[in-house]
Amino acid sequence: MRRVLILLLIAAAALAQQNPAAQAARQWREAHEGAIVREFVDLLALPNLARDADAVRKNADAIVALLAKRGIAARLLEVPDAPPVVYGEIRTPGATRTLIFYAHYDGQPLDPKEWLTPPWQPTLRDGPLDRDGRAIPLPGSGPFNGEWRIYGRSASDDKAPIVAMAAALDALKNSGVALHSNIKFVFEGEEEAGSPHLGRILAAYKDLLASDLWLICDGPVHQSRRQQIVFGARGIATVDITVYGPRRELHSGHYGNWAPNPAMMLARLLASMKGDDGTVLVDHFYDGIEPLSDTERRALADAPDVEADLKRELWLGRTEGAGKRLEELITRPSLNVRGMASARTGSGASNVIPSTATATIDMRLVKGIDHDVAARRLIDHIRRQGYFIVEADPNADTLRSHARVAKVVVEPSGYNAARTSMDLPVSRLVIQTVESARGKPVLLPTSGGSVPLYVIEEIMHAPTISVPIANHDNNQHSFNENLRVQNLWDGIELMAALLSM
Amino acid sequence: MRRVLILLLIAAAALAQQNPAAQAARQWREAHEGAIVREFVDLLALPNLARDADAVRKNADAIVALLAKRGIAARLLEVPDAPPVVYGEIRTPGATRTLIFYAHYDGQPLDPKEWLTPPWQPTLRDGPLDRDGRAIPLPGSGPFNGEWRIYGRSASDDKAPIVAMAAALDALKNSGVALHSNIKFVFEGEEEAGSPHLGRILAAYKDLLASDLWLICDGPVHQSRRQQIVFGARGIATVDITVYGPRRELHSGHYGNWAPNPAMMLARLLASMKGDDGTVLVDHFYDGIEPLSDTERRALADAPDVEADLKRELWLGRTEGAGKRLEELITRPSLNVRGMASARTGSGASNVIPSTATATIDMRLVKGIDHDVAARRLIDHIRRQGYFIVEADPNADTLRSHARVAKVVVEPSGYNAARTSMDLPVSRLVIQTVESARGKPVLLPTSGGSVPLYVIEEIMHAPTISVPIANHDNNQHSFNENLRVQNLWDGIELMAALLSM
Repeated sequence: MRRVLILLLIAAAALAQQNPAAQAARQWREAHEGAIVREFVDLLALPNLARDADAVRKNADAIVALLAKRGIAARLLEVPDAPPVVYGEIRTPGATRTLIFYAHYDGQPLDPKEWLTPPWQPTLRDGPLDRDGRAIPLPGSGPFNGEWRIYGRSASDDKAPIVAMAAALDALKNSGVALHSNIKFVFEGEEEAGSPHLGRILAAYKDLLASDLWLICDGPVHQSRRQQIVFGARGIATVDITVYGPRRELHSGHYGNWAPNPAMMLARLLASMKGDDGTVLVDHFYDGIEPLSDTERRALADAPDVEADLKRELWLGRTEGAGKRLEELITRPSLNVRGMASARTGSGASNVIPSTATATIDMRLVKGIDHDVAARRLIDHIRRQGYFIVEADPNADTLRSHARVAKVVVEPSGYNAARTSMDLPVSRLVIQTVESARGKPVLLPTSGGSVPLYVIEEIMHAPTISVPIANHDNNQHSFNENLRVQNLWDGIELMAALLSM
Repeated sequence: MRRVLILLLIAAAALAQQNPAAQAARQWREAHEGAIVREFVDLLALPNLARDADAVRKNADAIVALLAKRGIAARLLEVPDAPPVVYGEIRTPGATRTLIFYAHYDGQPLDPKEWLTPPWQPTLRDGPLDRDGRAIPLPGSGPFNGEWRIYGRSASDDKAPIVAMAAALDALKNSGVALHSNIKFVFEGEEEAGSPHLGRILAAYKDLLASDLWLICDGPVHQSRRQQIVFGARGIATVDITVYGPRRELHSGHYGNWAPNPAMMLARLLASMKGDDGTVLVDHFYDGIEPLSDTERRALADAPDVEADLKRELWLGRTEGAGKRLEELITRPSLNVRGMASARTGSGASNVIPSTATATIDMRLVKGIDHDVAARRLIDHIRRQGYFIVEADPNADTLRSHARVAKVVVEPSGYNAARTSMDLPVSRLVIQTVESARGKPVLLPTSGGSVPLYVIEEIMHAPTISVPIANHDNNQHSFNENLRVQNLWDGIELMAALLSM
């Protein structure tokens, strides 16, 4: 068994050697590790929250300069009140195919206090923090250990692909490997804010952004560390819920048993939404799901089983979903509590009945479930639990005249799921190219995460396929986000192969 | 009906005039309002969290000086690692009765960010904040409007009685109203921390603190603004609960549906503890309750009905307890969520599955339920919901090998309820004295709040009776704590009457 595995690995490695662009990328990278990482950390040092217009523009300007350095005429695509999209293109004489490489340069909101090193002071560590990785000085040149990690906001989500593409372009140019497609780059600046203006930008620049395929360079590789290709993404609807107790915090002794406690009300409300096995109990929650194709089912069955490893890594004694595997569970919609707050806890607690309690919920949606419909179903559920629903802070009369009041705010950033068939010719080409560069990939019908692929498909009528490069254990969307150095190296080879496809 | 009410009020006022000590106190106060308030705000300006040893000692020293100014030899009673008790005494020749006047000078923990004005910068306002009371300069002399409020930590809980006693002593001395009892003052410095050392201090100074009655000057008057006398206090057990999801926050898309969400787990756990009508569902929660006496039942029935007013004031559309009145509900044990936290919410939320979720719960207990037993019943309940219980942060092995792990920490500050019979001779004397000074009082078998009366009764074998002076809407234990000026004036008269009893 082990011998078969080794033979398979050798065969896969040999196959990888077959892709000349990937080979060229590796040689180039080995000779330029210091410079590549330097370009990366310079980009990571720029604060990049979508709501900070000035900061976002500095990022966009830096990426324009990064493309210009490769001889690519880059520009900003703008609509009012939105972070700019950085756009660049390479026209390839005789090419009949146009590929768009998409990534985003903005990062998730954060609380700096939670970070061990400041989020925009990129730090190299000799391993992951949860295995005591120590900060080490950035070497001027290679070789870098592939297990080192680079910590900083957007190290993995999603500045790494931008730098990987830049290095891949350098490698291709210097080794003389030819391109076969027209290439366009689209780097978005508000993906983590839910891409509220992407549709408008696509509509405004529809001709400029025509293509045969969008390659979405975002997200992590498989937990087995194998390259994966992901043919869709879940949609999303985010809802903030606030429930109300007494107008002001009350002494829990003098009023305990009498004044309703909003923390307990919220607990009961949340508990009503999900069964102990993870089944969502909101009426019609699963209605309309578009079934998987045979190819998609086969791909799921072929994906490596990482359940035991993941549970060990994440210190989990169980999972939801009645024993179904992660890959399968993310093809279903989910309901998740992002966070929950009411008064104070622990040593900061005071003995009060809180005045309000709040939770933020996200629902990850699959093809066949509209995000507005999903939000409406949740609101209906809250109403069925006895709540009078308001959309803004309720006044005294509203609170006095209803037994239970919930403020429910659906964030405007929701969008639908998307899924590209694995059976399209362009899908097969991508699978073949990735396999020749990085060995047999894991094929997933959808990512668990959400990227606004739906907007792209609907407006541009072009399919999307995701080719992520980050390590799965990257703390994406949390504090101490990081990129494993080997994933950057592998990403450069992957990008070189796809660029020359 | 109205005429009868007016006659009753006149009769009550006339009765109040019958108490010469209260009369003397009113005259003195009217002539010295500026000086009394100045002494009060000076005391409020001293930060007074029990955990801040230096600050607490400054308070104790200031109170020693305050007593010394009245010619009372005051001293600090100390045991190691505890805030000192300020002790003072007045020996009255020929007295056969000794009364202890208890108050506490420490304040509830707080978050200064929540306060409109800094908690230890006492501020006079021309009304309550929730009716747009504006800050006004402190006049050098009276008259003060009784509806003005003084904002600051411990304005109501519990420095007001200390200053009221001081002013009452001045009034008695200057008017020549005689004392009839020996008087002892006991001012505690860690009541808000659960009085962890009070038992040890009482034991160490048992002879010094011998008395026939402890008068507990803490808490608010009735919501009708009538004086109340409270013959007991609920006990308390406080429990911190933390439940665990993945070791680190995970992307809610990539792992949503698969990794258990601790916020949702905590919501389910809390929801299992209490029914929608407020009934606690913890097994045996109500077992052992000592029933009320006939006198106590009558007192409850006689208490003014403030339900409608309170609901309007607190913007409540309903109450718990199946329509039972507040006065009755607080004679039952309660379970309250003080606060709840998991990851972040609202604009600060990120799309993660949180790693942990925490709640702090307090249980208010009545006679017949031991606080340790109550905590054990709650722990048993958590275990029955499928949780493996730990008392310290669980390690990887513990988390990996159990489906559900809860860290449950019972705070060491719990204590039992106490209740003094309303039928004791000394109880009747207090009722009569209060009535002669302040009109017909509301009599309650127990406060909803907790004061360590149990410790006093058990160690000192003396009964306790609570004679609170603060307004009920004082934001006690929360931010923007305040005292209504009229309550300070009334409190001075009350203290004068009790001191000369």
